[in-house]
Amino acid sequence: MNTKHQKISVAVDVLLFTISDDKLQIVLTKRSSEPFKDMYCLPGVSLQENETPEEAAERSLRERTGLTDIFLEQLYTFGDTERDPRSRTISIAYYALTDPDKLLSSNLNEAAVLMPADRILSGRIKLAFDHKKIIEYGRMRLKGKVSYSDIAFEFVPEDFTLPQLQKVYEILLGEELYKANFRKMISPKVEATGEMLTGLAHRPSRLYRRKKARP
Amino acid sequence: MNTKHQKISVAVDVLLFTISDDKLQIVLTKRSSEPFKDMYCLPGVSLQENETPEEAAERSLRERTGLTDIFLEQLYTFGDTERDPRSRTISIAYYALTDPDKLLSSNLNEAAVLMPADRILSGRIKLAFDHKKIIEYGRMRLKGKVSYSDIAFEFVPEDFTLPQLQKVYEILLGEELYKANFRKMISPKVEATGEMLTGLAHRPSRLYRRKKARP
Repeated sequence: MNTKHQKISVAVDVLLFTISDDKLQIVLTKRSSEPFKDMYCLPGVSLQENETPEEAAERSLRERTGLTDIFLEQLYTFGDTERDPRSRTISIAYYALTDPDKLLSSNLNEAAVLMPADRILSGRIKLAFDHKKIIEYGRMRLKGKVSYSDIAFEFVPEDFTLPQLQKVYEILLGEELYKANFRKMISPKVEATGEMLTGLAHRPSRLYRRKKARP
Repeated sequence: MNTKHQKISVAVDVLLFTISDDKLQIVLTKRSSEPFKDMYCLPGVSLQENETPEEAAERSLRERTGLTDIFLEQLYTFGDTERDPRSRTISIAYYALTDPDKLLSSNLNEAAVLMPADRILSGRIKLAFDHKKIIEYGRMRLKGKVSYSDIAFEFVPEDFTLPQLQKVYEILLGEELYKANFRKMISPKVEATGEMLTGLAHRPSRLYRRKKARP
């Protein structure tokens, strides 16, 4: 094989998860030009010579959703040779997590929509490029990571109720949890704020926040 | 920012781990030209237009070590803007695992050496590019993955003794294990072959193999 230093286009695509309407949702944008015109895809940018992949992912988030300073981590690099019909392009995919309030108060681009992950993964929505594959991979990573890390907290506001947090765990894991088991698992990680959440739709409920790690 | 579809050089570097002399070792090659001439680096190739990153990683392994069909998984994509002084180059890093017998009976390139991971990570060996950072990241992933997967088996031959396998776990985890705890943890995963390992250097020892997953 002739192994020249060939140059290749590099995309950085961001899989932004949030939870709203008790569903895991993903931010998609509609393509305005060919290829895949009018189809949904993940928000992405072309990696520039003077930026790191992480900076490009932050730029994509900022331009499409107005969000900054949220959880962002590299997911995987997708490099099938036929994934972009225009020219050879690899995609460094990142995933990001946000609570829905932050997203709704942000400057979400008009072309951006929230789409339930289940609906995308069932195949009812056809996505551009290999973005369905990226979402499948990201969904798997998210589920795995919930079990051994604290990423579930990224989906709730700073102050939250325990039922609210339990619901997030259930949505991410895709299964119902016993309240007693959940409370036992979560209690070392949270502390009461001393405030109550009040409202007409439910009984007053204690508010909690994430316990700060000891220095 | 002017966001043209800039093209970028893409390297695929492979971090090949093995265990020999009771140490975790990494295959390095010596650079024959500038930049970083005569310094060690990970075996890598330049990604070609007509191959996937995984195919490029397999090619790098095959050309530098003669190895095929071993554990190979994408690690992370490194993209600091200054990581290659020649031109902007990102590196899609893979990690691979092999038992030492396979490596020693393979066609290891003359320029390739085995270097203890500890020696590299202590900083006593200066590596080209950001390859030390790649190795730090890979060492961390390997340690994490040992706990929740069966990758330790990749470092032993098909038939092995339990002390041999325990040693592999200890090296990967960086801590000694109690024999009784190890046996309890490992027994659902292995079965006796019925053969014994005999030799002058040790007492005869039962040989085991990995239990096949039920279909």
